[in-house]
Amino acid sequence: MRTDYCGNIDSSYTGQTVTLYGWVNKRRDLGGVIFIDLRDREGIVQVVFDPDLPDVLEVANTLRSEFCVKLSGKVRARPEGQINKDMRTGEIEILGTALEVINRAEVLPLDWNQENSEEQRLRYRYLDLRRPVMSQRLMFRAKVTAAVRRYLEEDGFLDIETPILTKATPEGARDYLVPSRTHKGEFFALPQSPQLFKQLLMMSGMDRYYQIVKCFRDEDLRADRQPEFTQIDLETTFLDADGVMAITEGMIRDLFNKMLDVELGDFPRMTYGDAMRRYGSDKPDLRNPLELVDVADLLKDVDFKVFSGPANDAKGRVAVIKVPGGASMSRKQIDEYTKFAGIYGAKGLAWIKVNDDSMGQDGLQSPILKFLSDDITTSLVERTGAKTGDILLFGADSATVVTEALGALRLKLGEDFELLQGDWRPLWVVDFPMFEEVDGELYALHHPFTSPRGLSPEALKANPVEALSDAYDMVLNGVELGGGSVRIHDQAMQSAVFSILGIDEEEAKNKFGFLLDALQFGAPPHAGLAFGLDRLVMLMTGAGSIRDVMAFPKTTTAACPLTSAPSPANPQQLEDLAIATVKKPS
Amino acid sequence: MRTDYCGNIDSSYTGQTVTLYGWVNKRRDLGGVIFIDLRDREGIVQVVFDPDLPDVLEVANTLRSEFCVKLSGKVRARPEGQINKDMRTGEIEILGTALEVINRAEVLPLDWNQENSEEQRLRYRYLDLRRPVMSQRLMFRAKVTAAVRRYLEEDGFLDIETPILTKATPEGARDYLVPSRTHKGEFFALPQSPQLFKQLLMMSGMDRYYQIVKCFRDEDLRADRQPEFTQIDLETTFLDADGVMAITEGMIRDLFNKMLDVELGDFPRMTYGDAMRRYGSDKPDLRNPLELVDVADLLKDVDFKVFSGPANDAKGRVAVIKVPGGASMSRKQIDEYTKFAGIYGAKGLAWIKVNDDSMGQDGLQSPILKFLSDDITTSLVERTGAKTGDILLFGADSATVVTEALGALRLKLGEDFELLQGDWRPLWVVDFPMFEEVDGELYALHHPFTSPRGLSPEALKANPVEALSDAYDMVLNGVELGGGSVRIHDQAMQSAVFSILGIDEEEAKNKFGFLLDALQFGAPPHAGLAFGLDRLVMLMTGAGSIRDVMAFPKTTTAACPLTSAPSPANPQQLEDLAIATVKKPS
Repeated sequence: MRTDYCGNIDSSYTGQTVTLYGWVNKRRDLGGVIFIDLRDREGIVQVVFDPDLPDVLEVANTLRSEFCVKLSGKVRARPEGQINKDMRTGEIEILGTALEVINRAEVLPLDWNQENSEEQRLRYRYLDLRRPVMSQRLMFRAKVTAAVRRYLEEDGFLDIETPILTKATPEGARDYLVPSRTHKGEFFALPQSPQLFKQLLMMSGMDRYYQIVKCFRDEDLRADRQPEFTQIDLETTFLDADGVMAITEGMIRDLFNKMLDVELGDFPRMTYGDAMRRYGSDKPDLRNPLELVDVADLLKDVDFKVFSGPANDAKGRVAVIKVPGGASMSRKQIDEYTKFAGIYGAKGLAWIKVNDDSMGQDGLQSPILKFLSDDITTSLVERTGAKTGDILLFGADSATVVTEALGALRLKLGEDFELLQGDWRPLWVVDFPMFEEVDGELYALHHPFTSPRGLSPEALKANPVEALSDAYDMVLNGVELGGGSVRIHDQAMQSAVFSILGIDEEEAKNKFGFLLDALQFGAPPHAGLAFGLDRLVMLMTGAGSIRDVMAFPKTTTAACPLTSAPSPANPQQLEDLAIATVKKPS
Repeated sequence: MRTDYCGNIDSSYTGQTVTLYGWVNKRRDLGGVIFIDLRDREGIVQVVFDPDLPDVLEVANTLRSEFCVKLSGKVRARPEGQINKDMRTGEIEILGTALEVINRAEVLPLDWNQENSEEQRLRYRYLDLRRPVMSQRLMFRAKVTAAVRRYLEEDGFLDIETPILTKATPEGARDYLVPSRTHKGEFFALPQSPQLFKQLLMMSGMDRYYQIVKCFRDEDLRADRQPEFTQIDLETTFLDADGVMAITEGMIRDLFNKMLDVELGDFPRMTYGDAMRRYGSDKPDLRNPLELVDVADLLKDVDFKVFSGPANDAKGRVAVIKVPGGASMSRKQIDEYTKFAGIYGAKGLAWIKVNDDSMGQDGLQSPILKFLSDDITTSLVERTGAKTGDILLFGADSATVVTEALGALRLKLGEDFELLQGDWRPLWVVDFPMFEEVDGELYALHHPFTSPRGLSPEALKANPVEALSDAYDMVLNGVELGGGSVRIHDQAMQSAVFSILGIDEEEAKNKFGFLLDALQFGAPPHAGLAFGLDRLVMLMTGAGSIRDVMAFPKTTTAACPLTSAPSPANPQQLEDLAIATVKKPS
């Protein structure tokens, strides 16, 4: 019935009669001649209704925005001055010869010409998605998943579905629970990831698994988290970290090449230690040229406690960021950056402006110059490579605070001073610690199934804090695209890790008995990775939020204004499930 | 590291040294020479360890079933008498030259040489899936989904994800509920299908949508249902029923052709009325040649109330199945079939054996002959085409009982008498009634969003019982592969259907307000279909249950013996969710 999509009618159709379906994007009346822009998912085409065909013109006269219509007409070249080379349909127009209104439209509750509230956009999502920018993002996303699937399938990966109704995980507090009707008083949990199932599939010999799969996390929603999100999840057998990194790097490179015509090249690798030291982040944005430069060794003996204290403390850190052109900062700007660093615990932000790099200390400007000898300032300028017009900003505190505060400041300065270079800067971060210590307790930095690098269970137990894991994160432009690891395939090692994490034998058996069992029956070495699909598509489309690359996202309070979910349950249903809601004193 | 999969090593590798990873499928010791069958997902290859290499032989001596190993060796032709042409690797063997045990295995809790209980198989699913028949099914399934995706994507369908955390549906009693932590006392529901979301996507202009998607139903599990199952779900805009049927029939034909080298041909179409009348089922198995033949008109005046009663009742039915060769049935067999028909409400099963079709009533044998004139028996024999050696089995009762009982009996007789013809017999069933009446109330036979055929809202309201819907089911070998319909895109029609279903305005607004809203803004005509992927793969692989084509299914009581889900929840978590479990008096 339809000749083609509206957006595909180009000059190759000139002279032909076409039939199209679509929506009225815009209608103009120019002295009795009516023009409409007819829209479908592939684009917009211009239609003209001429007084020579009064019956059709009469119908065209009734058209309003977003009416759904069927149109037939003859394709002809546009008059010279009206050609638009930027549109596929920009060289032609259609002289409408038949027009049928399929469905009328009320005035839309969303005004596409202005910003609409998130709530309103989500409530009328089906209208919001009509906006070309939105439908194009969903189409782009569909092409991404298709390309990913093809790449992985050609490499022997099998798409295998894992359960959504499953058992609560160690990070149980964030599990969505599902009451069971058959087993009253008991609950399923929605998976935060298919981690254990994909490991079991490797133990069953499936060799290479992948899945583009929904995962769930019931957490306090920060700006850009969603209760359900989508992972590109994969796992391989008999491959080490390098093997998995080669496959997944190849996949992302291929994707950027096919979808964006971008050549990413080989991804550099950086250790977690270097990333934290140089960029104050385990997901450094390498487009940003600013670096944290350690200067504690220069400041151990200065008569300025703010510096000498941390410089002499094994757990302290003194580092500096040189901002090219930053000497132009006003006192007010510096105050604002100081406040910003304060969010991350920094108690102040010492600074030195380089007004003239040929004049030694006389060319410098800073409230703290009096504490620093000529030798020291010379060394500081040399080490940071500071030139006329630059500013040095100092962090001096515990290593954690300095790293975090300067890491955040680095990002902000990079944006404010428009320092970002290059469009796409991917890298691998490797050599993570196995554990992180919080208040004297050890936590798995990745997850408890991650293998340590080159350690026996005994060696790991002897010094867990120093142990490195065989984990790897792929980072792009400061966003963690994906992370993975070599998994433990040895029962003794898995037990050792549980014990280091304070999971006693009974708890381990209760929660992970099936995994420990499975490790007894010829479990193979295996490793994998999971990408966040939403974030990947967000980056690739330049969207501002993962919500803009999902068809029906939730609000930041995990609700759906479109369907009004969640909602109170039917009392009979709660009775069937043997649960009751509990009113809290407010 | 690996040269290839074990199952791919064929005579083209002869003379080469290969490195393989895999599991010991079997180990035999033949006079000091050790043979192992090494297995991976692609198949099995034979390895020989020779006393000439004593170090390797010593390691080989320690091998037991399911050890995970790395092996290197030289590929050579098998001795003449040992060639197995049925296996890809059957012409070669590998002389093992290096062997490393990667992981040992305890004796398996499953004995693959005998039937294991479902519970045991699911508890050790990772071992059950190592069986080649099981891993091959999962691989087959992955190829099916890949082929389906490619077919649909080439036809312009976009893979768009719809939410898993959503609002309760009209069939709410079967919804799995998910308590919300952010909105205490309220619940999400897991979707029984993405029906409304895919309709909204059509209203947003996405034009063609598909998704291979998990759906959920918390129902009493019959033999072959699962709490979570997978649909191939699709929806199109501006296409009618024929359009959707052409696309989906083409997809299934292509799939059978590619995967099984089977040419399905054009699918015949049958009305729901014909299917029920001739086969006693809305999903007739056309491999079975038996049919229900109506004979009420012949039996209106017989002096046998069992026949004449239903024959004269407008809601009654008298029908007969002719079973070729059925005259050999013993009295006991007939009693068993009578009992079987009784399950479906039939109070008896009258029969006539045709011992000699050339002798008129003298050639017939039956306890009811005395009630039937010569004319009548002649007409019965003629209409059914009964021949010497056949039996006629009668159903006489309400139409519902006769149709259901003879429909079930037909299937059983077809199997017992081995009457099934042909491997694959697909068809479309069309022209369903819009509503079915149960105890005076009307229910939607498909769902409340299905469009009636060629009726205005007023005409539909005037006579809903007679209305046909624009719905279609694809049936293969007696199994409903998929079903779909043209949807309502007109607000007045949607309101009319809600009102016929007894959903008042307030309830409609509360449950489906967003749909009714959406229909006001230029909603396009749309239609779609959903296939049950599990059943499709089950049929194509010849598996006995959908559980055998899922990686990690639940038991028939909706539990997972592997992970012990569902399980009691952490009390703190329940408190956070503001719900409590309720103990029922037992």
